[in-house]
Amino acid sequence: MMHETFVRTRFCETDALGHINNTSYFIYLEEARIEFFDLLGANMETQRWQFILASTKCDFMAQGYFKQNLVIQTWVSRVGTKSFTLNHKIKDTQTGKVIALGEAIVVYFNFDTQQSEPVPTELKEQLLEYHGAQAE
Amino acid sequence: MMHETFVRTRFCETDALGHINNTSYFIYLEEARIEFFDLLGANMETQRWQFILASTKCDFMAQGYFKQNLVIQTWVSRVGTKSFTLNHKIKDTQTGKVIALGEAIVVYFNFDTQQSEPVPTELKEQLLEYHGAQAE
Amino acid sequence: MMHETFVRTRFCETDALGHINNTSYFIYLEEARIEFFDLLGANMETQRWQFILASTKCDFMAQGYFKQNLVIQTWVSRVGTKSFTLNHKIKDTQTGKVIALGEAIVVYFNFDTQQSEPVPTELKEQLLEYHGAQAE
Amino acid sequence: MMHETFVRTRFCETDALGHINNTSYFIYLEEARIEFFDLLGANMETQRWQFILASTKCDFMAQGYFKQNLVIQTWVSRVGTKSFTLNHKIKDTQTGKVIALGEAIVVYFNFDTQQSEPVPTELKEQLLEYHGAQAE
Repeated sequence: MMHETFVRTRFCETDALGHINNTSYFIYLEEARIEFFDLLGANMETQRWQFILASTKCDFMAQGYFKQNLVIQTWVSRVGTKSFTLNHKIKDTQTGKVIALGEAIVVYFNFDTQQSEPVPTELKEQLLEYHGAQAE
Repeated sequence: MMHETFVRTRFCETDALGHINNTSYFIYLEEARIEFFDLLGANMETQRWQFILASTKCDFMAQGYFKQNLVIQTWVSRVGTKSFTLNHKIKDTQTGKVIALGEAIVVYFNFDTQQSEPVPTELKEQLLEYHGAQAE
Repeated sequence: MMHETFVRTRFCETDALGHINNTSYFIYLEEARIEFFDLLGANMETQRWQFILASTKCDFMAQGYFKQNLVIQTWVSRVGTKSFTLNHKIKDTQTGKVIALGEAIVVYFNFDTQQSEPVPTELKEQLLEYHGAQAE
Repeated sequence: MMHETFVRTRFCETDALGHINNTSYFIYLEEARIEFFDLLGANMETQRWQFILASTKCDFMAQGYFKQNLVIQTWVSRVGTKSFTLNHKIKDTQTGKVIALGEAIVVYFNFDTQQSEPVPTELKEQLLEYHGAQAE
């Protein structure tokens, strides 16, 4: 399984080189991450939980342009003890062309104690449902 | 008197038309406003006070470009009972060319009661020091 | 008639006050403006035309929040010789609450001669179809 | 040798968690990269050259806050045939605390032929002057 988030690029996300500025891709990746967390949360009503972003990365494969319709595919590539890794593929919805690849390392974090904690079993199982997916 | 804030435009603030995107000017105006509030606050240590932005506006007089050094001049054009108006002139520091004119209506606000309140006399006096300045 | 643009607020569009930052509203207004121009352009295939933003303004009526679904209603409030004025109302789609009011003065501009030009009759007629609309 | 870029965080770069949003760090990294390219360019007047960003990454070590004065240290960690890697350390200028670590893979690119090209010897030598620096 993998999650799909859809965005249409905005004019203010372009830059003077005529394409989407590199910083804008991290806006799209944040959107995808938050939608994915919402999705998990929808199944976990008995428990409030939080995440901290430890690291994020983007490989730029092709230029993106204004008014482009993009899909950001999100899946889980690693589930560790206290953290997990999300991978993203950003594609043009019309041509299927890969525009960028993203990655995010997310730490399971207790905001009360301000410390990382082991990923709960229930969440681990949810994450594993999105594990190993190969975005095409 | 008027306050001057200096910014150098960033690449990600441009857009595909090759100039500074209109949304970026509001980043500069926010910078100028916050610096101006800091300045006032520096003289008002006995009192914590807060502001709410009720309205903001920008007239675009000339195009701005990447790596341009800008000065944002800020002065007070109106001091009312519960609000005041700031005006801004954004100029190229090298040529003096006017790039944009800004305006902000700021309400004096009590965050505890969630209501606007009369601007205190001491603050009014501070604001009046920056009143009527004609940015050249 | 009026045009409606839909946006869902993003996390990176919030600020440390816990609400949508004032600069983000100008992103939404740009989205609405561009969609409106697209709409007009769709009816004007025989002619390439361009616009320049001369001024933009936003009145903040209520705080906006993360993950809020907003509609930006756009209509024409003035059609002049060489320019026209767009008005916007930003509302929460669920409650109908007005979050902000926007305005944009747009100049009809010839990029080849770098000069403003009279708004063509055909465009004037299109604009007048969206004139006088009262967003509710 | 390493290059230092100074930024003061802006209010609109924060988010509703009360700290600097992750996407804002990529604004700072772009600033640092562009300053570094300017620096190299200043020594290479006989030749116009261009770069393409192939990948960028940020590890978030500590939270950043509004009005924080940051220094972004930039150095070269790899010089390859057609590309090179920049590393960045973002620190609080007052406390020296490390806030984030950045990385960027940059490809030497000929915009006329739209192809990557070997990094010229002169540029390689310039890059090597910033190689191996250990930011403290």
